[in-house]
Amino acid sequence: MPTDTKTVTNAITDALNWRYAAKQFDPSKKISASDWQVLEEALRLTPSSFGMQPYKFVVVTDQKVKEELVAACWNQPQAAQCSHFVVFARNTDITVETVNQYVELIAKTRNVSVESLKPLHGMMSGFISGSTPEKLAEWAARQTYIALGNLMTVAATLNIDNCPMEGIVAADVDRILKLNEKGCSSVVACALGYRAADDKYAGLAKVRFSKDDLFINI
Amino acid sequence: MPTDTKTVTNAITDALNWRYAAKQFDPSKKISASDWQVLEEALRLTPSSFGMQPYKFVVVTDQKVKEELVAACWNQPQAAQCSHFVVFARNTDITVETVNQYVELIAKTRNVSVESLKPLHGMMSGFISGSTPEKLAEWAARQTYIALGNLMTVAATLNIDNCPMEGIVAADVDRILKLNEKGCSSVVACALGYRAADDKYAGLAKVRFSKDDLFINI
Repeated sequence: MPTDTKTVTNAITDALNWRYAAKQFDPSKKISASDWQVLEEALRLTPSSFGMQPYKFVVVTDQKVKEELVAACWNQPQAAQCSHFVVFARNTDITVETVNQYVELIAKTRNVSVESLKPLHGMMSGFISGSTPEKLAEWAARQTYIALGNLMTVAATLNIDNCPMEGIVAADVDRILKLNEKGCSSVVACALGYRAADDKYAGLAKVRFSKDDLFINI
Repeated sequence: MPTDTKTVTNAITDALNWRYAAKQFDPSKKISASDWQVLEEALRLTPSSFGMQPYKFVVVTDQKVKEELVAACWNQPQAAQCSHFVVFARNTDITVETVNQYVELIAKTRNVSVESLKPLHGMMSGFISGSTPEKLAEWAARQTYIALGNLMTVAATLNIDNCPMEGIVAADVDRILKLNEKGCSSVVACALGYRAADDKYAGLAKVRFSKDDLFINI
């Protein structure tokens, strides 16, 4: 639990203001191993529906693969220029067996019996078996956006630039990264690294609706 | 831009570990006006697709309305116990006119002509007019999850507990909050406030898959 919330809060607000969707990265600047560890842990700790984490974080640092991905990302050069390219992929093999495995993980982590988790198991497996494949795919896809939101915020506090990308051709990204055989499929991506000194988008004023336009207070 | 990233980073990692989905809130503890301002600004600054912010944040603090919402939230008592109940609602009236308004906001914010933003306008209006209502609804819904992810992270750094809720009956929440006549529809919610001293879930170990299970490194 943070002790000096004032410092941290100011830093976060500053970071969210500093952040923008980087259009040009400096390819020579790489995220350090220690910073990456923080981002990795932030992703891992992301909250998700039932805590089921129905996704994989596919982290591409291989330069050749990053370059191959550009065409699959509507030719956005950031995929190749960035330090770490993260593809958020939803798991495609979500069944009652997934629930079994997750419940076993809970039992092990909390040192309780699987038997004692029967009501939770019933709730989750009821949800899974009661959902169409399309609904499950969308449910899993939405969870990846929580992770994306978390990642962009944490990265910004580390002065790490990022550019989220919905504009990806999922089938092509899946093929290049061989995701289908890994039981997942790409949903959205995020390029992370450091802005190029000449990215003209860096200096532009942030565009947001006013609080009056965005909030309804009841 | 944060100056002491080390302190901030540690605080964020601690906060993400400290955070859990609160099952019981202490109804006597309210989020202070100054803390709420930080959360409001964090929500406002959330990144979104094209920066279009196709949503409203509906913030319910009226106790009577919060109590009315419980039944619409699968009887989760947190809706009434919490300090601030945030409903993330996607805009339902997304048309080319929405793009016009957004482009005008960009022009005003950045002091450039609407004319100079024609290529951007074309890209966005092409996306809007080329999407089915169902696709647009899902696109807008997904954006709210970025805001949800951002909000939970920032709240945790302020020692503010939260509980995300996908388990809401959207039609009922919309009716209670009269969202349809406000041009939006509920997607997901988040109760915010302070955990009750006797919430037995607070002490449970966090359950997450290992890095090996969650990450694919390429």
